[in-house]
Order: sequence, then structure tokens, then C-alpha cells
Amino acid sequence: MKDSENSKVTPWEVSGRVDYDKIMTKFGTEPIDQNIMNSLSRLTGGDIHFMLRRGIFFTHRDLGWLLDQIKKGENFYLYTGRGPSDHTHIGHLVPWVFTKWLQDKFHAKLIFQLTDDEKFLFNENLDTEKTHSLALDNALDIVALGFDPKLTEIMIDTDRSGLLYPQAIKIAKKITFSTIKATFGFDQSANIGMIFYTSIQSVPAMIESVRAGKNIPCLIPYGIDQDPHFRIARDVLPRLGFLKPASIMSIFIPPLSGVEGKMSSSDPNSAIFVTDSASVVKRKINKYAFSGGRTSVEEHRKLGGNPDIDVSYQWLRIMFEPDDAKLKKIRDDYISGSLLSGEMKALLIERVNAFLKRHQELRERAKDTLHEFLAEH
Amino acid sequence: MKDSENSKVTPWEVSGRVDYDKIMTKFGTEPIDQNIMNSLSRLTGGDIHFMLRRGIFFTHRDLGWLLDQIKKGENFYLYTGRGPSDHTHIGHLVPWVFTKWLQDKFHAKLIFQLTDDEKFLFNENLDTEKTHSLALDNALDIVALGFDPKLTEIMIDTDRSGLLYPQAIKIAKKITFSTIKATFGFDQSANIGMIFYTSIQSVPAMIESVRAGKNIPCLIPYGIDQDPHFRIARDVLPRLGFLKPASIMSIFIPPLSGVEGKMSSSDPNSAIFVTDSASVVKRKINKYAFSGGRTSVEEHRKLGGNPDIDVSYQWLRIMFEPDDAKLKKIRDDYISGSLLSGEMKALLIERVNAFLKRHQELRERAKDTLHEFLAEH
Repeated sequence: MKDSENSKVTPWEVSGRVDYDKIMTKFGTEPIDQNIMNSLSRLTGGDIHFMLRRGIFFTHRDLGWLLDQIKKGENFYLYTGRGPSDHTHIGHLVPWVFTKWLQDKFHAKLIFQLTDDEKFLFNENLDTEKTHSLALDNALDIVALGFDPKLTEIMIDTDRSGLLYPQAIKIAKKITFSTIKATFGFDQSANIGMIFYTSIQSVPAMIESVRAGKNIPCLIPYGIDQDPHFRIARDVLPRLGFLKPASIMSIFIPPLSGVEGKMSSSDPNSAIFVTDSASVVKRKINKYAFSGGRTSVEEHRKLGGNPDIDVSYQWLRIMFEPDDAKLKKIRDDYISGSLLSGEMKALLIERVNAFLKRHQELRERAKDTLHEFLAEH
Repeated sequence: MKDSENSKVTPWEVSGRVDYDKIMTKFGTEPIDQNIMNSLSRLTGGDIHFMLRRGIFFTHRDLGWLLDQIKKGENFYLYTGRGPSDHTHIGHLVPWVFTKWLQDKFHAKLIFQLTDDEKFLFNENLDTEKTHSLALDNALDIVALGFDPKLTEIMIDTDRSGLLYPQAIKIAKKITFSTIKATFGFDQSANIGMIFYTSIQSVPAMIESVRAGKNIPCLIPYGIDQDPHFRIARDVLPRLGFLKPASIMSIFIPPLSGVEGKMSSSDPNSAIFVTDSASVVKRKINKYAFSGGRTSVEEHRKLGGNPDIDVSYQWLRIMFEPDDAKLKKIRDDYISGSLLSGEMKALLIERVNAFLKRHQELRERAKDTLHEFLAEH
């Protein structure tokens, strides 16, 4: 969908400056308001993840209802996913980090779907071997984040078709081509795998209920671009006797090139990959990270910078500076001009490289435990 | 497709009096000519199945090529299938009996696909439990016919999605909605499972090549109404590096009600099910089998009957009287008036009941060996 004249948000393309208020109105989602925050806080012992406090996760569906269920002692599970079209980059980690926090706080089971079939079907240049090997590669990053192996089931679609397809046809039977056309904008030149695909993405939203033989509420954290899939899931699942999944959605992490659009693997200089070396990270941020600073140091000292369009600041806000007080000081110093663009970048480089050093070690170790996550739970 | 003003042939509907010559022209298939018969005869030691001699299997694609490959010592495999929407009836057995003959003559592996997903997706009133249990039920009839368990793999789609779906997406990526619309006549109200389905039906036409890691020719015997699926398969598989499957196609076995259309489970009085008792068979044939005889015995004796529109005669020709000399005598006697309609029916009843008595015993025994056929070969 187009949410304003120059931006676009679909599961396969995000471009332009996204107006998140307009998106909420158009998609029909609710803002995360004080009531939700209070409910959540009561359940987590006062802890609210910084991504919630800062509006990185900014909107939801039925989250109030879900929290009420949890309060009543009801079990629930988490479901999120990733389309493995390339190596994992920093932008992908944002919802995963938040999902891990939810798992930790609620001791909730997580289904993590890796949609290698989707990426194969939607990309002319990818074959199934490539998308499958990328799924295994991306899975290492999931494991490295520290999800609980007992509570986390990573499903690679083509490895788990025996589970997914027989359920997907139940969903597919309730969805017409007209609905797909209207929801995703496909025309008659779309391949029939693309057309069918959304039913595969809906299965994890009900699979734990199928397995349990009774309804278990599901909460799906995702980037708001995935919303069309879950609008369909929420329409169809009740017609099959399942609950509508609740959801909590994030903004996009901006590419290095500026605060418009979404970090994408297709432009390697716009993204930092989890496998990038420290020197590559340094070079990319120094060279490509769009700055909200002034053209000269003198001017910057005098007039100050604009953190709202400064990608380095935004990355600190979204992911790399969890401490609100520290973040505020960075912001204030940037606006006042006492913190220079180069210093802001240096701050980010340090944080990203510290994170990646540890992540890359954990990623290596993940090779030993990956099988636990891939097994049927 | 409509092949004349009052007949229709699609994978989901056959009605009216089918003109098989026109079908060949419209579908672009070849007649089974003397060259084919001679090639086949050389390979089978002079044996030609009566269904070939009588034009029950009447048309093909690339069968000459396949027989040449066999002559050169090339391996090949057979693939056929069944949509389990109800219990098996006599009409279903016709291509299976022929397929078994091919297996026996060539010692060929057979993939027998039971498309429970298809029947679920195309029938509003069937759920997946029902179609799956019908698949298991129908599988007993396949086993009862005496296929070689070492050479025969029965694939129930929803049990084998782990194998089928990852291959089907490769096919699906090459098929647009436009193609589906043009081939099957679907419109935008078609559900997305129906739209995707043909790619699942194409997989067995290449699966042995996938498993072997090299191309193995495939021969598909089927009722001509299934042709649209395999036209698509023949178009797509070469684009994935596979051979076009060869095929050999049969006419439809007429319903009891007359020689138009195709025996169907939806009118139980038009079909004889393999589980019907001897008395039910007798009643159905006596009551419903359309007769080519005259209105009175006197008139019949004087003018004779018409075997071409007599369903009992047609069933003897198609399935129950393998002996050409005996069949000719029945035909001649009917035309001359010395064989009455009631006698023709009695002849058929005796044959059908003899067949079913044995089939029902074998069907019971099949419960012990079914697992061998369902296992991955």
C-alpha cells in the first residue's frame, strides 16, 4: 500500500518516508497506549523494554486482550519469522531482540519461521538450494541471540512442509485470488506459488492450537510491512475455529543512507551484516551513515545537529543504546552542538562492533546447538 | 473445455457425449496407431492388452519415443493417480488395471498419487479428515489389484507434503495465474489452494529423476479429463531440466445411466462401488443400466439391439470381457436379437460380482500390506 505520495509499504518493498500514524489508520491497528504499557508493566514486574518506551514497537492488535488472558493465567505462544534472502543484517535483529525479551519475561514458546519457500518464489535469481542454505545461515543468528532451546522451534518451511502444507490448505481454501490481488497487489502474471504462499505464513499462527487440540493464544511481533499477511490470517483463522492472533508491530530500522525506507540486503552499503568485520563496520558507518550534522565543525558547534535524521543516532535509539539517560545525553549534546557527527559515528561504531564481536562468537557456537532448535518441539 | 455443443471435459467435470477424435485434435495428442502397437508388441513378447486393442486407451503423447528408449534398455517409471472424493467405483479401476499390466510387462516402478489435498480444496463439503480417510480407503483397492509392493509407492499428498511441496514450488514458480485461468477456466473467486494445486500433481512426473539425480523417463496413464494438468507439466518440466513425461490416455467408463459423461460417485445409482454387495450390484444393473435393447422381447428378437449405446455391453467391452472372440459373439448375438437385454445384464452381473467377490477378499487382505506401499521407496 502507499501510505503517502512518496512512500510504499508492502511485505516485499518499503520505500520513502513512512508516516506511521497514517499506517495505523490505514492498516486498522491500535497504538500502544498507556493502558497497554501499564498492563504489561504489571506482568513483567515493572520492566518495559526500551523498544516499547521509545515507540520502536508502536502498534498492535488485541494486545490488551492477550495481556488480560495472561493475567488470568492463560498460556500463550510467540510467533515471528524471517525471509532468508541474504545474510542477516542489523535491521533484522531489532524484532528478534524484542521477541527474545518477550520470551524471557513470559517464559513463552516461540515458533520462528524461516520462509525459504517465499524467498525462492519471489526472487527470480534465487534457487531453492540458496534459500535453504541462507535459512540455515540465518538460523545461527537466531540461536546466537540466546533464545531458549527448549522453548524455541525454528521452522524452515521446505524442511517442515510435512507439517505446514496440510494445515496451509485449510487456510488456502478460505482465500480467493481476488483477496490476494486486493491485499498484495498481485496481478495475473503472479506465479501460483506466490499466490498460495500467504497460507504457509499463516500456519504458525495456529499450529500450537492444532498440536494442543485446543486454542492457545498467539502473539506475533513483526515489522509493520508484514501486516497484510496477518490481516488475512486474522480474517481466516476464526473461520477455522481458531483465535485471531494478537500482534505487536515495529517501525523499520533505517538504512545507512537515510531515515527513509528500510534497511535492505540488496544495497550492501545500506546495511551492516552480522558477519561484517570491525573494519568493514567502521568504513560503512563512516562513509555511508547519513548524518544530521552540519557541513562544518564550526557550524555544527554553533547550530547543533538534527538527531531525527541522523542514522547513527537512530540506530543507537532503536537498538544500541538501551539506557534512556545516556541516549538523552547523546541527543541533547548533538542538538547543542557539543557532540559532533564524527563522534556520534564513533559511538555507534564502538557499540555495533562490541555487539558483533560477541554475536560472531555466539554464532560460531550456535552451530553445535542449532539442531535442538530445528527439531520438532 | 467444451469439445462439442453438449459435452464438457475438465479434470472436475465430464458431461455429454464425448467426441474422442475432437478431443485429440483440441488437446493435441496422438492416436495410438499401428506403429505404436507394433513397437509395444515387440517389447511385450506379442502381448497387447485388450484395452489397447479396443481403443479404451486410445491416445498418447511421446509413447513412441518412450518405447524407443525402452528398446535401448533405458529405465522408466509409471505414474498415475486418483482423487479420493469417495469410495472407489468400477470406473476408477479401468486405468489401474491397465497400469498394472504395464508394470507387469515392464517391471516398472509405479508412483500412485492419492490427491486428498485436491479433493479437499475443490469440494466445499469435504474436510481433510474425510479426504485423508478416503485416500487410505482407496489405497486398499490399489493394493488389492495386485501391484508389486516392491515397485509401487502410494503417495497420499498430505502424508507426503514433506517430499512434494519443496518440489512443487519449483514448478509453481514457472506457472502464472493467467496460465491457470486459461487452462482450467478458474476465475478470481478460485481459492488459492486450487490455483496452486496443479504444481503438486506435477511433482510425481519428475520425482524419480530428482531422487536419482538424473533424468528417468516417466509414462503417465490417465483418463483424458486429467490432460490439462499434464499439458502444464510438459510445458514446465523441461524448463527445470527434466524430461517431458510421456502419457497414454483412456476414454471414460460410462455411468450406468447411459454412454454419455463419466461414471461419478455423486450419483450412487450411476456407479458400482467396489464395496457394493452382490445383491446391490444386481439391483443397480437391472434397474439402472441403460439398455440398447428394444422395448419388447418380440421386437428385440426381430430387430436386434444396439451394443454401442448399451451400457452393460460397454462395460463388458471396457473391463469385464477380456476375450475378443467371446466379446464379438456377445455383440453379434445382441445385434441379431438372439441375446436379450436381460441376458446381457445377467452376463455383466455375473462378471462384476465374480470380480468383486475376489476384489473384496483381496481388499481385506490389503490392510496387512498397505504400509509397504505407503513407505518411501
